[in-house]
Amino acid sequence: MKSGFLPSNRRDFLRSSASAAALGALLPGMSIPSSISGRRRSDVDGVIVFQGDSITDAGRSKDDQQANVPRSLGSGYVGLIAAQLLGESPSGELEIHNRGISGHKVFQLAERWQEDTVDLRPDVLSILIGVNDFWHTLSHNYEGTVEVYERDYRALLDTTREALPEVRLIIGEPFIVAGGTAIDDRWEAFGAYQGAAARIAKEYDATWIPYQRVFDEALDKAPATYWAPDGVHPSPAGNYLMAQAWLDAI
Amino acid sequence: MKSGFLPSNRRDFLRSSASAAALGALLPGMSIPSSISGRRRSDVDGVIVFQGDSITDAGRSKDDQQANVPRSLGSGYVGLIAAQLLGESPSGELEIHNRGISGHKVFQLAERWQEDTVDLRPDVLSILIGVNDFWHTLSHNYEGTVEVYERDYRALLDTTREALPEVRLIIGEPFIVAGGTAIDDRWEAFGAYQGAAARIAKEYDATWIPYQRVFDEALDKAPATYWAPDGVHPSPAGNYLMAQAWLDAI
Repeated sequence: MKSGFLPSNRRDFLRSSASAAALGALLPGMSIPSSISGRRRSDVDGVIVFQGDSITDAGRSKDDQQANVPRSLGSGYVGLIAAQLLGESPSGELEIHNRGISGHKVFQLAERWQEDTVDLRPDVLSILIGVNDFWHTLSHNYEGTVEVYERDYRALLDTTREALPEVRLIIGEPFIVAGGTAIDDRWEAFGAYQGAAARIAKEYDATWIPYQRVFDEALDKAPATYWAPDGVHPSPAGNYLMAQAWLDAI
Repeated sequence: MKSGFLPSNRRDFLRSSASAAALGALLPGMSIPSSISGRRRSDVDGVIVFQGDSITDAGRSKDDQQANVPRSLGSGYVGLIAAQLLGESPSGELEIHNRGISGHKVFQLAERWQEDTVDLRPDVLSILIGVNDFWHTLSHNYEGTVEVYERDYRALLDTTREALPEVRLIIGEPFIVAGGTAIDDRWEAFGAYQGAAARIAKEYDATWIPYQRVFDEALDKAPATYWAPDGVHPSPAGNYLMAQAWLDAI
């Protein structure tokens, strides 16, 4: 066990992370040799904000919304991504926030966008939204349509691009897991929401995370019960697939 | 998983996971995380129970103590291990429980051992306990000594071996992260608790997870603030190191 090193090493830590940042600024496009990790982790340094619904929320503490704190990140894919990024790349330059809220649809993100996203000044903004925009038309008398979803989503990203012109966007495909208890034939109409999200991701130059394909392929290995019992909310195994897909895509 | 978890799809699931295994053998690189290779995950199939204090607890739901459910596993190292094991090895044969409770010392594990451990019939039992056995002598007027810790820990494992003769034991080294806000010179005495845990692990033929070394080595990369701000409770990065050390050891 080391003792009393903090005061002296703190400076070294800051110095070395400052030099890492300087190196990154000098060589912004430099790719990291695949022998390190096979992933370009350098371009996710900075402030990362995750936005979305219950899948993103995953039981995070709302009373204590801190960056890089386990209870504030929740027990879903965001917590897994944060742990892996922070654990593998201790640069001291990563600040990861979870601002997902259960039940939310696009218009509800818009209502809290300024304080919950823009004010955090993200370098990377990851959004996963859409399942409730459809689901709540079946179960909550919500009257929004896919046109409303697409229009509101575009407006949200217009606002984002204006307020944060440099932000890197990551858009996750809203998905369902066939065979889950909440999924029935009516969900065929959900494909239109996925198509809208895909169009938007392309037009707004976002990195696209193809979660539907991830779960479709996973069904070859185990049934929906294993990946997301209700077809919407992932199990630990489902969250792991999401986290790996996110990390692979960036 | 021993019974009835996958009611209707059980047969399909077993069949498809067999073909997935065959496919994995044919196409070893395909969409399987690289971290899977080189590890024998098969020998941790069955029921895994994690026991311990707040580090293990990590905000898990006590109202809803289910296996393989994110909120029941918490946002600490157990959640990370569960997600990775379940995500990488969808055999359907793994059932992972978290039964850590914040603040607990060895004698408190003993008080709830029957219902919270033995009754779950674990195949693998992972225990991390000891930091409060010392810490609470500094902060909570607890009067236990290292001799009490070692005696109670042995008694707990004697009970365990009698009730569960086949269980595979995994014992985590209780640890502190030097430079954390709760750590001062008095913690030099904590080394005796770590020594007791190491002796016990050896004598009871447990797999030992050397968490102290893990965190000591991590301090070369970033200070305690990064791995465990108070020196006791890990950050997401600290939890990630713990999870990887656990997975590497088994």
